[in-house]
Parts: sequence; structure tokens; C-alpha cells
Amino acid sequence: MTDFRHGGFTLPGEAGYEKLTLEMAEKWGADVIRDSDGTKLSPEITESGYQIYSTICIIREHNAFALAHPETQQQVFLSSDPVTAVSDSVSIDPLAGYFTEQFELNTDEDALPFWQVWDRTAGCLVPGDRWRLEGSTVVISGCIPFHRYTVSFLCRRIWEEINMYNHTTNHWQTEHLRQLDPRHPLAWDYLQSWLRTWCEQNPRTNVVRLTSLFYNFVWIFGDHPRRPSRFVDWASYDFTVSPAALKSFEAETGIALTAEDFVNKGWLQATHRPPTARKRAYMDFIQRFVAEKAKALVEIIHSFGKQAYVFYDDSWVGMEPCGPYFESIGFDGLIKCVFSGFECRLCAAAKVPVHELRFHPYLFPVGLGGLPTFSEGGHPERDAVAYWLHVRRALVRQSVDRIGLGGYLHLTVGQPAFNDAIGDMAVSFRRLKALHAEGAPAELPLTVAVLHTWGSLRSWTLSGHFHETDSNILIHLNEALSGLPVRVRFISFEEAKNGALADVDVVINAGRAGDAWSGGEAWKDPDLVAALTRYVYEGGCLIGAGEPSAVEGGDTRFALAHLFGVDQDRGEYACHLPWAFETEKAPFRVDRQALGKTDGIRVTGPDTRVLCADGAIPLLTLHAFGKGRAAYLGGFVYSPSAARMLLDLLLELAGQDGSGAAICDDPLAEAAWFPASGTMVVMNNAPEAREIRVRYPGGILQALLAPEEMKFICPLPEAR
Amino acid sequence: MTDFRHGGFTLPGEAGYEKLTLEMAEKWGADVIRDSDGTKLSPEITESGYQIYSTICIIREHNAFALAHPETQQQVFLSSDPVTAVSDSVSIDPLAGYFTEQFELNTDEDALPFWQVWDRTAGCLVPGDRWRLEGSTVVISGCIPFHRYTVSFLCRRIWEEINMYNHTTNHWQTEHLRQLDPRHPLAWDYLQSWLRTWCEQNPRTNVVRLTSLFYNFVWIFGDHPRRPSRFVDWASYDFTVSPAALKSFEAETGIALTAEDFVNKGWLQATHRPPTARKRAYMDFIQRFVAEKAKALVEIIHSFGKQAYVFYDDSWVGMEPCGPYFESIGFDGLIKCVFSGFECRLCAAAKVPVHELRFHPYLFPVGLGGLPTFSEGGHPERDAVAYWLHVRRALVRQSVDRIGLGGYLHLTVGQPAFNDAIGDMAVSFRRLKALHAEGAPAELPLTVAVLHTWGSLRSWTLSGHFHETDSNILIHLNEALSGLPVRVRFISFEEAKNGALADVDVVINAGRAGDAWSGGEAWKDPDLVAALTRYVYEGGCLIGAGEPSAVEGGDTRFALAHLFGVDQDRGEYACHLPWAFETEKAPFRVDRQALGKTDGIRVTGPDTRVLCADGAIPLLTLHAFGKGRAAYLGGFVYSPSAARMLLDLLLELAGQDGSGAAICDDPLAEAAWFPASGTMVVMNNAPEAREIRVRYPGGILQALLAPEEMKFICPLPEAR
Repeated sequence: MTDFRHGGFTLPGEAGYEKLTLEMAEKWGADVIRDSDGTKLSPEITESGYQIYSTICIIREHNAFALAHPETQQQVFLSSDPVTAVSDSVSIDPLAGYFTEQFELNTDEDALPFWQVWDRTAGCLVPGDRWRLEGSTVVISGCIPFHRYTVSFLCRRIWEEINMYNHTTNHWQTEHLRQLDPRHPLAWDYLQSWLRTWCEQNPRTNVVRLTSLFYNFVWIFGDHPRRPSRFVDWASYDFTVSPAALKSFEAETGIALTAEDFVNKGWLQATHRPPTARKRAYMDFIQRFVAEKAKALVEIIHSFGKQAYVFYDDSWVGMEPCGPYFESIGFDGLIKCVFSGFECRLCAAAKVPVHELRFHPYLFPVGLGGLPTFSEGGHPERDAVAYWLHVRRALVRQSVDRIGLGGYLHLTVGQPAFNDAIGDMAVSFRRLKALHAEGAPAELPLTVAVLHTWGSLRSWTLSGHFHETDSNILIHLNEALSGLPVRVRFISFEEAKNGALADVDVVINAGRAGDAWSGGEAWKDPDLVAALTRYVYEGGCLIGAGEPSAVEGGDTRFALAHLFGVDQDRGEYACHLPWAFETEKAPFRVDRQALGKTDGIRVTGPDTRVLCADGAIPLLTLHAFGKGRAAYLGGFVYSPSAARMLLDLLLELAGQDGSGAAICDDPLAEAAWFPASGTMVVMNNAPEAREIRVRYPGGILQALLAPEEMKFICPLPEAR
Repeated sequence: MTDFRHGGFTLPGEAGYEKLTLEMAEKWGADVIRDSDGTKLSPEITESGYQIYSTICIIREHNAFALAHPETQQQVFLSSDPVTAVSDSVSIDPLAGYFTEQFELNTDEDALPFWQVWDRTAGCLVPGDRWRLEGSTVVISGCIPFHRYTVSFLCRRIWEEINMYNHTTNHWQTEHLRQLDPRHPLAWDYLQSWLRTWCEQNPRTNVVRLTSLFYNFVWIFGDHPRRPSRFVDWASYDFTVSPAALKSFEAETGIALTAEDFVNKGWLQATHRPPTARKRAYMDFIQRFVAEKAKALVEIIHSFGKQAYVFYDDSWVGMEPCGPYFESIGFDGLIKCVFSGFECRLCAAAKVPVHELRFHPYLFPVGLGGLPTFSEGGHPERDAVAYWLHVRRALVRQSVDRIGLGGYLHLTVGQPAFNDAIGDMAVSFRRLKALHAEGAPAELPLTVAVLHTWGSLRSWTLSGHFHETDSNILIHLNEALSGLPVRVRFISFEEAKNGALADVDVVINAGRAGDAWSGGEAWKDPDLVAALTRYVYEGGCLIGAGEPSAVEGGDTRFALAHLFGVDQDRGEYACHLPWAFETEKAPFRVDRQALGKTDGIRVTGPDTRVLCADGAIPLLTLHAFGKGRAAYLGGFVYSPSAARMLLDLLLELAGQDGSGAAICDDPLAEAAWFPASGTMVVMNNAPEAREIRVRYPGGILQALLAPEEMKFICPLPEAR
């Protein structure tokens, strides 16, 4: 019997709390001790025999260099707020409304040519001879009265965003840290040299934990207390920009990007929106740049006999773990902080030797949402268990190699419930890991393809954590899928047109009209529509949620309305009378709470079966087309019971009975069957005890589960 | 003192009930007796000394002629439902899904060239050599597999729609009546001759009551019991079409319309949607045709010494009372059936000598909604009073000349409550008419312009009765305005650009994105946006409701977001953090029930005052811009109290105190001050007694009102 008390656990150590560090390392079975943002490790810790991770944010903490070479700092395109001209001239302060501790106008000789002035009312560029910069004000002449004007401008970012966040949220008082752009040759030489020196000076470090690479997710602060943060996108590329980047991109591709390619009328280009072809080409260019530079850093780290792990958060832009270049960097490990199951699957899917999860809550007085965790009013053990319930069902489906924590270890003092909970989770994690090592859990012969603009580049995640993207239906579906016994892949519209549907049982398209997840303009492509139509006609299945395949300009609002048997009325159906319908009993348990209502949904004919409705609006429908079938969901809100409904719906569509895997009778419990080790893992997702029956290839298993319990039952016969 | 017991009342007589007819004529003070659809008048009635109206539906009841000359029947363009090709050919039955008792394919030599076949997936026309008609089936070859195809075709309408409605709804069993197209020379000659004969044969008729003219509103029946009616639009022009009309239009304008100009991908072009320029030109062409032909009929009627009144319902297309050609027809009277106040105002606004309202309920066993009125379970007196409460407040603002009823008079037997209620209404109507004759009621110095695509062509109404259009915010606003002491006009976007805003105090734009009321693509015109911007900047006020000025492609979703201080997020604002706001106390009484919630509304800056919100969604806001102000309402649902809130909002925006007119302290009561006759009219809109105070130029009036009472108080001093 393996010892499940030790290994695969990364503990945040803390100088000044050496005894506590070693005690907790023992309690949680740690094999690694790390530092965190804000903590240091003392020699007493680094020399205690544990493996040592050291955190580096490579582009930060070089203020002296940044101030000496301001041109090496990172930049961004911003747009001024629009100003209405009331005569034939108007003055605009570009940075009005922005946080001037974060931004500084870049009026350098190579930057000014990228500035633009727009008449946003007419939607046209103002010629360069009609505006001039006076000090930090742009004066525009020859205006059309009562048109609105904006200035698009480059500026330097003079406060690294995570440092800024810690100052503004956690009242840090230290020097504002700046960030360097590795694209600048001076900065790049400096950073490589700095890393070499660091490696030399930190002989005890086994693993350099890069947090993360170069370009932070986009976080634009404002100057008003009622909107301190203007824009946050965890996956967009605005912070990678500079005149040098644009020129290099043009030299390589022939595409001359302008401010408007980034500013996009002031909307910017959020990851939730479909990118232009130009922007996609630019993203690929940045990804290659990031991979190339990261590879060079990894090689330096390796040359000192250390390993290079990357923490996938903060400055992650361009290093998407399922992107095309991630593997080429040569990282030894990927660390992902997790609140949710989909994040485990994202980490597990990356092609890298070691996959590590950093659990939540972070050992910090307050959580990301600003609520107390390790401070008065907080319940860190409840938080930890809540996240664990999400995470463990994904870990059951696909293993990772390590788990860990981060933050200030001393905050665990006086938190025995939390400390015990983490210890229990660590044991469960190790048991799961061992099970996976013996052989994969039973899986249904059912492949789900999530279809959206980004395809595998945005596997599992949309562009941030669950709570940051939870107004999007798809993240709820991804979260449900992360713990289901089905195969999941993420495909793009281009792939769908070119054969990727061949071995797919169920395609999911879920989003709102015009977004990257639904697809927007992609649905104007008749080849895409025909590919999906053929796929369903020949027996494929389809799930649409929200406003799937919605696009203007067709003869239906949903390009796939003929498959779904529902369409959406946003006014186009004015005077067209609706089909009356009766709601019929579903062939599976419908969780009405999990379904959402999308405005204007109407059935398109008498053959659409409505399984759930709110008045005249269908919430869940089924429709046959050719040999295939399509389901429509007005919305989907993740819960354990919602995940079960999704599984039932997948089985219903695919005409399968689920007999290849383990399925509980209770929608609030889940099970996984590991045939190689004859072990059943059962999980109670409910806060009360449940007596469950599990149907699996070996027969029927009955079990009594304590509230939220995860139980390992073995040995069991493999099959009847 | 005038006698308010007699005059201005049109009674529906009924052969076989002569005694009842004369009794009820006396009770209600009728001066006119009319027949109705389904009733006749006997000589005993027509010779009783009353004026006689006789109803004629000019294009109907000529079946022998229609069958002898089928080419003279009316037509329509329809689109087949789409059919998916699963190989390189596909067959389509064009009329599948349509009611074949209403439609018959027109495969005549002059009709077939107008047929079209579309690949709706690719959005392109299929060349004529790739399809052929085999019997009544269209066979298409050279298809792209898994594209969807439709056939657009001409067909004859072989059952007049109102007759069809009475058969299918009221179980009539008589011969299906057909309808003639006056554009056909044979039909036109026949109809004129028939009218002359009719006039000769009906010497007792004083007024020929035309019901209505030529082209019915569009009503397309289907073949499935779950959708018996496919499409109903009370104002669109699809039923005017024929090869002859299209050729004549092309000869006149050079515009060659095709099936697609009408079919519009299968959506058709509902009045609620903005028309294309081609369609507007065609509408104008039809309006001129209808006016010309109607004028000829009126001249025939006049030549027999009779008057010609027109009932504005059913076959009304092209004779809009506020359209440019209505007055030229030379009608002696306009009769409008009314459920609502806005319909009174529409009737009163027409340039015609006599304005008459036909009250509801119609004397019929069931009402339009299919519920009982004069049959078991019905409460006709309740219905009558409910409609009267809507109607009287408009009559207080602007008078009409006559009122009346329609239907089967014998149904009033055993309905003393109804009969008394109608008698009371008739007296109130006559008192109001007399007051108006002495001098207009006091009005505020406040001009409201309702701004939409159609302008004055669609004054007051959208395209039907209230209950048919009540999903549109604007009809609720129009209904509220119909009883307020303000001047109201209806202007188009073209007019707004060209000076029509000059003397307007408050502009209202209310609708949903893309509809004719909000405006859709019209808002892409920078001149329109600049005109409104200048108007508000210089002191004009603006009310937007729902999705006002919404259009894709700009830097805001509402083209006037900078004026409203709110915009709508339909996904474009992804990652843009919202402005926090606090709801402040409004300077007037907010009727939260009257406000609606529009998805995605967010304030655009810190200066937007939120007066009512539902969570994070503002429902009512105020925003200053230059010297003017703009209000945004998420929705508006008519009620007496909602109308009062609208009045208060208008006053607040315009900076007026309302002292020029009579204003009640009680939001459920209304008042009008007739200075010329020193009379105050007060109305209790509540079902319980109210004690009210009315502020008016003469001081303060107190009054006790019975439930729903309308009281005339005089003499009062004109001013303090």
C-alpha cells in the first residue's frame, strides 16, 4: 500500500516562521517549499532538505534600469474618451479618465506617427494636418460641429499591473514597480544577464518558478472612484504593443497595423469578441516571439542545473498552454492556480512534464473578490472545500502531478480546520494520482467538440477564472464537462469546415450573438453552415446554448436554426405569429434551475420538442434533422445537478445508455470507475449524507456517503 | 342649455328587430342608423326618418365576376419554407405550409418571370436555367448539398381575408368571397359600374360607408393547427402587388422591383421594420393609386347626392389618414374603431369634414381576442367602460364629431348595464364636443415630437390596435400622450435633419434595436446624430426608451449614448467595467411598474443620474448635455399612473411647472381646463372614489369623484 501522506505538495514557506514552515511541511506531506509574492525563504528553510521553488517575475523589479532606459518600458494603445466638438475646433486631453500613475503619453519620435485622431460620429480618420499636440493636449481643427472626436495614442505603462493591484487593493506602500519589454534589445540583454546572475546567486533553488513571462493580461485603470478599473481582459494582447513590435510585424507579414487595430473604436478587442484576421496574425506573431524569448530564458535556467516551471497567471499573454508554441519553450513544469474543474483540465492538457495546481484560497487576508479569507469574518476552510468540490471531479477525470498553496504561511496559525482540510485534500489527490497511474478511468465512447472562434488556443478556459467570465454560458458548460466521463476537444470554425467533425459525437456552440464563443460573423460562411448541416444530417448531434450561431443578415437569426428547430426573434419576426407548443416530459431529469432564458426564442416548426419552457419561451428543446439531433438550451448555470443534466442530454442525443462508465442514480453524486485497479471513486456533491447506487460495467454498487465525501471503494469486479 | 341626449350617434340597425332598433335609437339618441357586416336594414328602418349609412366593401361580393375573370383577383408574393438539399437537386412545393383555401399559385405567363429561387445558405439567387416548374412543384438542379433553398412566387388570393376570418373564427358557412384588384382595367370598369348601380338601387342611403377601400392589411394563413395564422401586419403593402403594378411602377420610377423586395428572405417587410428606399417608393406609388381610384369612387357617390365615409380598418392599405394623399380623395367622413386614446387622436387628426369613432365592444358574441362579449361569460358593459377610460382622456384633448356602434343590435337585449353605459358615454361625448366647440382646452407650452422612420405617415398608431402592437414601447407612449395637455407631432429622421426640431421641446425615440420606431440603420447617418446632438446641446430635451438610436457599427451601441448618458451592452462592452451608481430620489413620482428593463443598459459616466434601477440595470435616468437634457427609460407600460409619470418627466425635462394647464395631485386622476367655457373636466381613472385637488390657472379646485367618474365642473373663474 502506497503512503498517501507525502509527496507532490508545494508549501509556501516564510522567513521568520521557520518552525511553522517545517511543521506544516510535515503535516501536509510537502516535498517542495516555495516563496511567494511578498515572502522570502530563509537559509534555515532552503537548507532543510526540501526541494526549493523560487518565484521570479522576470520583467518586474528592475526600476533602476527602467528609469535609466525609459524607452525599454512596456506600452499600450489607448483611446481618449470621445469629446463633442461644439465649434470647428476641439481640444482633447488624451489621458483624461485614465489613471496617470499607470500611464504616461509616449510622444517619442517613433511613437507619434502611430497616433490617430478619429471623427467617431462620421467613423473616419482625421488627416494629420488637422490636429497637433500642444503640450499634452491634442488640438483638432476643421471639425464638423457636434461630431465626437477621439485621440488614439501610444503610452508607456509605468506601473506593473499586479504590483499596482497589490498597492491599490492591499495597501502596499513600497516603490511602484515598472516592467520591461523584452522586445527592446537593451532590455533583453539586461534581462538575460540579470537571470544568469540570479541563478548564480541562488544555488539552493531547484526550480525557478516564473510568474509568468513578459506581458500582463490587460488591466486598464481609470481615475474615478466609481470606476477604478476600466478594462480587464485576462487574455488579450494590447500590452504587447510597441512601435518596434508593429514594425517587426509589418516586416514579417506585410501587414501595417494601426492604432485602430487595437483601439477598435474604443471597445478594444476583448477575447470574448471575434478577432479580425489582422489581429489573429499579430497574436501569432507575439506567440512566436514569447516562445522564442521564453525558450532562451529556460535554456539559461537549465544551464545552471535548475528546472524552469511557469506559473500560468498574470503575465501569461502569448504563452497559452494549449497554444501552438507552448511545448517548444521547454518548460519543465506548468503551475496553474485553480478555483474550478476546467482549470485542472487546462493544466493537465498542456504538453509539459509536470502539471501542478495551486489551490485556493491563497494564504492572504482577503480573497480576489475582496472578501475576507484569513481575516476576521473569513472561513478559509469553507472556501477551500468549496473549490475542492469543483476541482476533484476534474482530477478524477484527468490527473495532474502536484498540488500546492501560496501566500503567507503564518496565516494558517489558528486555522486547524483549514489545515486539516488541506491535509485531507492532499491525501485524496495522491490516491487519485496513484489510481490514474495504474490505468485511466472508464470513459464513454462519446466525443464532445466545443466549437468556437479560438478553437484549441482557448481550450477549457475563456479568458480568466470562472468568476471573471461567469456571465458566459460556455464557461458553465466547460466546467460541467470537466468532470464528465466523456472526451472533450476544442475546435475552431476553420477546423469544423475541414474535417474536424468526422469523429465527433456532439458539437457544442454556446455564447451570445456576436461573441467569440457563439462565433458572430463566422456564421456568414455558407461552407461552415453546410458543414454543420451535413454533420447533423448524417447523424451528428449538436447542442446550442444562448445565442448559438447567431448572426445578422441571414434568413434566420441563428444560422443553424434549421438544425435546432428554434430561432431567436430580435425584431425580425415582427408580425410572424409563433408556433404554439406544449411542453413534453423529458426523457431525463430536467434541472430547471440550471437552464436560462434567452430573449425572443421561438420554435420554428411543429417538430421541435419542448422539454422545458418559461411561458412562451422554450428553455430546452430537442429537434431531429436527418439522422442527427440538436438540442437547444436557453442558458446553462453550472451546478453538480446541471452537470448531470448535461451528461444525460449528451447520452440522449447520442443514443447511448452510459453503460461504459459509472453513473450514479443521484444527480448530486458522481462516480468514476478505474477498471485497472478495480476501484470506484464516488463523490457526494451535496452538503448532506446520501445513499447512492452506481451503475457500472461490473454491476450495481451501493454506497453511503457523508456530506461532500469522496470515497474510494475497492476491490470491485471489473465487469459482470 | 344644450340637450346632450341626442345627436352625433350612429346606431347599428337590424332587419327583423325593427322595434328594438327604434327603441335603442331613442335611448342612445341616435341620428343615424347603419347596417353592419352580416346585418341588413329593412324598409321599416330606412324609412323611419333617420339618416342611413350603408356599408359597402367595394372589392368583395363579386364572386361571379371573379370566377369569370380570375386574372382580376388580388395577388401576393410568398416564399416557400426553406428546404435543405441533401444532394445536387431538390424539389419544393411552394405552397407547403400555407392555407391553400387562401392561396393559388399564379403560373400565368406574366407572373412566372417574377418567380425566384434562392440559395438561402449562400444568400444568392439561383439562375433560371437551374430550376423548372413540374406541375405545382419546383425542381432545382445543380444544388450545393446542405444548402437551403426557397422559391419566391406570385399567387392569387382566392378568399378575402375578413370573410375568411369570419368563417374560420365565427363559423360562417356561406360562400367564400373573393376580392378584385381595381388595378385591372376589367375589374375597375366593373366596380365603377357596380357602384353606380348600387347607388341607384339604394335611394334611402344618405352615407355610403366604405369598408374600407381596396387592399386588405396583410394576413397570411398557414395549414397547421398550431399556427393557423402565419403573418399579420395591419399596415404593410404585400397585398397590393401584381405584375401589372410592378410594371407600372417600373415605367414610372425606373425601379424594377423583384420578388425579393417583398419576400425579404422570408421575413417580409413588416411595418415595424425600416423599409428599403425601393419599398418606400413603391408605397408612395400605391398611395397615389389608391387615392386616385378612391377619388373616382367618391365622385360617383357624390353624383348620386350621397356622402362617402370611409371606415379605416381592414382594406386600409394606402389610405393612411395622415398620409399625403388622404385629403385629396374627398371623403366626407372618416370612421375609426377605437379601443384606445391614440386611435381617437389618429381619427381627429385626419383632414376630413366628419370624424366618427366606432366604439367597442362590437355587438358580436365574441371579441377580437376570441373571448366572450355578448355571450355566456361576457361582460360587455365592463369592456365598454374599460375602453371608454382610454378613449375619453383623448376626447378631452381633441374632439371628434360622432360616435357609434356596430354589429348585431339584438345582442343588446337583456344587457341593461351595457345599454345604460353606452347612453352615459354618449352624453359625456356630446358635452365634450360642445365644450370643444366653445374653445379648446388649456394646453402646456410644450411640443413633443415622436421621432421614427415613418414620421407623420404613422401618426399615433404603429400598425394596428393597441393589443396587436403592445410589445412595442412606443404604442404605450403614444397612448399616454393621447391624453396629455401637450402638443404632439410625429416626425421622420429626414425631417429631424432638416429643421423639424426647431420648435420642439422634447423629442421621443422609443423602440428596439433595428425596428422602424427606434430607427435602425438611419442612425448610421452622422448628420442625423449631429442634428440631435446640436438640438440637445442648444437646450432641447430628449426621451429615449428601450433601445433608442441603437445601431451596429458605431463606437457606442446607442448612437445618442453621449446624450442619454447610458448605453447598451450586447457583448461589445465585454471586459469594460461598469460605472457604479447610486439611485437618487427623483424630483417626481416614479411609477416603477410602468418602467421596463432593457438588457445590458449601463451608465456611461459619473454624471448620469439614476432615478430608478433594478439591481445593476438602470430603468430611468437623467443626463444633462449642453443646455439640454435627456432621459432614458428601460421600458414603458401604459397605465393612467404611467401617463402621469410621463407628464411629470416632460415637465422636468423642459423645466416647466405645468401651471398653464390643469394638473391633479392624484396620479390616478386627470383634468382638463376649458377656459372659454370656464369648465373643468375631471376624470377618475381609479376603480375607487378619490378626493382630488386640481391646480389650474384659476387656482385650486377640489373635487370628490366616484369610481371611474368623469365630471364637468362649471362655471369656474378663468384665472387668478
